Amino acid sequence: MSKKLTKRSEDYSKWYNELVVKADLAENSAVRGCMVIKPYGFAIWEKMQAQLDKMFKETGHQNAYFPLFVPKHLFEAEEKNAEGFAKECAVVTHYRLKTDPNDKSKLIVDPEAKLEEELVVRPTSEAIIWNTYKNWIQSYRDLPIKINQWANVVRWEMRTRLFLRTSEFLWQEGHTAHATKQEALEETELMNNIYAEFAEKFMAMPVIKGSKTESERFAGAVETYCIEAMMQDGKALQAGTSHFLGQNFAKAFDVKFTSKEGKLENVWATSWGVSTRLMGALIMTHSDDNGLVLPPNLAPTQVVIVPIYKGEGQLEEISKVANKLADDLKEAGISVKYDDRDTQKPGWKFAQYELQGVPVRLAIGPKDLEKGSVELARRDTLAKEFVNQTEVVEKVKHLMVEMQDTLFDKAFNFRNEHITEVDSFDEFKKVLKEKGGFISAHWDGTAETENKIKGLTKATIRCIPFNSEKESGSCVLTGKPSEQRVLFAKAY
Amino acid sequence: MSKKLTKRSEDYSKWYNELVVKADLAENSAVRGCMVIKPYGFAIWEKMQAQLDKMFKETGHQNAYFPLFVPKHLFEAEEKNAEGFAKECAVVTHYRLKTDPNDKSKLIVDPEAKLEEELVVRPTSEAIIWNTYKNWIQSYRDLPIKINQWANVVRWEMRTRLFLRTSEFLWQEGHTAHATKQEALEETELMNNIYAEFAEKFMAMPVIKGSKTESERFAGAVETYCIEAMMQDGKALQAGTSHFLGQNFAKAFDVKFTSKEGKLENVWATSWGVSTRLMGALIMTHSDDNGLVLPPNLAPTQVVIVPIYKGEGQLEEISKVANKLADDLKEAGISVKYDDRDTQKPGWKFAQYELQGVPVRLAIGPKDLEKGSVELARRDTLAKEFVNQTEVVEKVKHLMVEMQDTLFDKAFNFRNEHITEVDSFDEFKKVLKEKGGFISAHWDGTAETENKIKGLTKATIRCIPFNSEKESGSCVLTGKPSEQRVLFAKAY
Ligand SMILES: [Zn+2]
Ligand SMILES: [Zn+2]
Repeated sequence: MSKKLTKRSEDYSKWYNELVVKADLAENSAVRGCMVIKPYGFAIWEKMQAQLDKMFKETGHQNAYFPLFVPKHLFEAEEKNAEGFAKECAVVTHYRLKTDPNDKSKLIVDPEAKLEEELVVRPTSEAIIWNTYKNWIQSYRDLPIKINQWANVVRWEMRTRLFLRTSEFLWQEGHTAHATKQEALEETELMNNIYAEFAEKFMAMPVIKGSKTESERFAGAVETYCIEAMMQDGKALQAGTSHFLGQNFAKAFDVKFTSKEGKLENVWATSWGVSTRLMGALIMTHSDDNGLVLPPNLAPTQVVIVPIYKGEGQLEEISKVANKLADDLKEAGISVKYDDRDTQKPGWKFAQYELQGVPVRLAIGPKDLEKGSVELARRDTLAKEFVNQTEVVEKVKHLMVEMQDTLFDKAFNFRNEHITEVDSFDEFKKVLKEKGGFISAHWDGTAETENKIKGLTKATIRCIPFNSEKESGSCVLTGKPSEQRVLFAKAY
Repeated sequence: MSKKLTKRSEDYSKWYNELVVKADLAENSAVRGCMVIKPYGFAIWEKMQAQLDKMFKETGHQNAYFPLFVPKHLFEAEEKNAEGFAKECAVVTHYRLKTDPNDKSKLIVDPEAKLEEELVVRPTSEAIIWNTYKNWIQSYRDLPIKINQWANVVRWEMRTRLFLRTSEFLWQEGHTAHATKQEALEETELMNNIYAEFAEKFMAMPVIKGSKTESERFAGAVETYCIEAMMQDGKALQAGTSHFLGQNFAKAFDVKFTSKEGKLENVWATSWGVSTRLMGALIMTHSDDNGLVLPPNLAPTQVVIVPIYKGEGQLEEISKVANKLADDLKEAGISVKYDDRDTQKPGWKFAQYELQGVPVRLAIGPKDLEKGSVELARRDTLAKEFVNQTEVVEKVKHLMVEMQDTLFDKAFNFRNEHITEVDSFDEFKKVLKEKGGFISAHWDGTAETENKIKGLTKATIRCIPFNSEKESGSCVLTGKPSEQRVLFAKAY
């Protein structure tokens, strides 16, 4: 398979699809809409998981595990939630296969093994979890409950794309229960902030924090907070959501507690999640026409060392230097791979690691042995320089921070250049068509207008940003009064 | 809920069920046969996962993720494997629910959303993975592939017990592909050895390594190696299996490679797994009538500190000492919890941590402040002693090793006392009835005899141990010649 990618400027979508497959991140499977996450892709996801898990635990959350299946009668209980997910549910109806009497090499569903009640493969776990919490909560002493689960979920999607939209995906879902509205709202905000911090510090991906309009809210939520990122093609990507669920699930599942004052009250809830979709966001934020570009904080291999040699003897000499360097780098907390395979040429290796986004490549040839140098290439800028062997560790340590910052700054500038204030609908359409990105515009606050704009332009309201100032204006479509600009964009 | 458990001697099975629930490890869910793993139980599972994952990676394995669903035609492909799992499969037949026209608050399966081909919820992933490997393997250069996945699987069980047998469970499944039979056999053995090392060093649970008879083999395997442990009630528990799959899956999925010599050959395969069943094994190996007993290597909290005080002032003084101790212990790599909640009394806390198996409990009261001491209680022996505050860290560090060893030794002695050599079938039945444990006996090597013995006694051949010597004898049932003793037992 050629390593050459379609250029982003030619066909962004094709570039993405090719990159995901060629960089060995993921591929489509034999199951419609479900992906195989390959070892290299999974290693990046594991780094994301480890960091998020740490941040969840540091803020008092614990992991647990709830069933994959939701009995239909529980799934139905919270009406809006059920309505929102019913159209895309995988449903288990039978619990046995049997040999096909017409063809002994085949299996058929055994009609005698029909379930009394169908089981929904979880598209999200509020229903099964709140049905469980019901038995855990009697008194204010049992609150708060702050649980997270790492799990697979299934939402039957008609159009799928690797990482961005798949029928099965991996995610974490936090589900918390609180005695007061205030505490639940604070948790909702805290988790949205943790997602933002993760996105910015680890993914080097700037995000805008805000709340969703009613039409874009999670089914069953009172408020949905979100972080929104900007991809290189000018489309937005929702990277994480945190929901204030009010007492909706407590009411649906009859979860009450006795307060300190002895009153029986409904419990307040939140839920929040990020998924393997973040992989898509990470790829699209930084990568270039040569392949993946990874921020050092999430790169499974931060430094690769490639020997350039003729014959065993030379390899041996180079390996001495390389192994010493690798050891020193490891000691400094850097993940290193020394690739001394003789089955591939250096040129092939260079192309491979470039494609896979390894942040720093060190090459050592016979001349470097003489001069005590190595050639250092950084993946983000593609710049190369010769570095004294004794200075490599310091240089690389510095570069890990430097590159993380550089990638963030670049994405931050790009994102900021792609927020355009517009004050008329003609301008709105023009900017959306010619430039893309976020459009900051006044909106009259109605779902009707939001819907009309979506119908006319395919742009949706990504969020009502938390940090924007109140400003009087008139709706870009209807001219009706508005108090604040919101962010529109076409989105993944 | 009372914390008092049924005694093991009264009803071992009831003791286990109560312990799992009362120690907050897991509970049954609203979904038949599926469990909720509660935060405390999950924290232990996470410690197991982390250690196993480390051992897998150290031996060159990488994690990946494959789909939850297996299309029926792939599931069928390896005949024996399909046959083995067909009777206990959850089957997805539809991808949508719709509003019940007769009752708008209910949902029904949408008959128009019937899948063209049914999807089996994976009971194990050989089929979907080998169908994927097919595209990854062309040449010997693509081998070996050594992949592991952490996942949930579903096997529809009629009689379920928390952790030991549930319809959904969590596990890891390794799937490797090799160029030669020899290499695949070595991998099979390596992974069985890793399981044994994990069981003994981390779970403090002695195991016997061996191979399964044909009737007890994994469906589709040529050989199944296993580790077998002995529970306190004299029943055996299969704690992990590693399968040499020969070329069965390569043939079923047509996975061939070009060898170094340029010949087209079928790939050799292994698969291996351990599951949340290990939680059941851990609980039953060490726990007592007071509750859970955890080996320090797997305890989420290794030390708990409980203050014993009257009034705020005293608590403040005690907390100074407790926090200092907690910091010092943490620095020494010990996980500590200081439980200064005022909502529960010390007696309640003592009972709770005993029930939950925290290895070391430190209590600090006003007299300890005067004397500079703490009361140290170890969970395994229930022994208490006063320790000088300045000596706590050294004492605890030593105890972590000591208790790990003590637990292993105790289980090891118990296990060894429960291996009985018998040479007649009357003796076999007598030992099985009166003493239980492993019965080491000669067997004529036929599935027929094995089956008869199972029918007569409910004992199965747990394994043909690797470490046992060849010894001529005659089958305990048929009197036919035998070359080696095998281990029989009733099993979980
Ligand atoms: Zn700098
Ligand atoms: Zn000792």
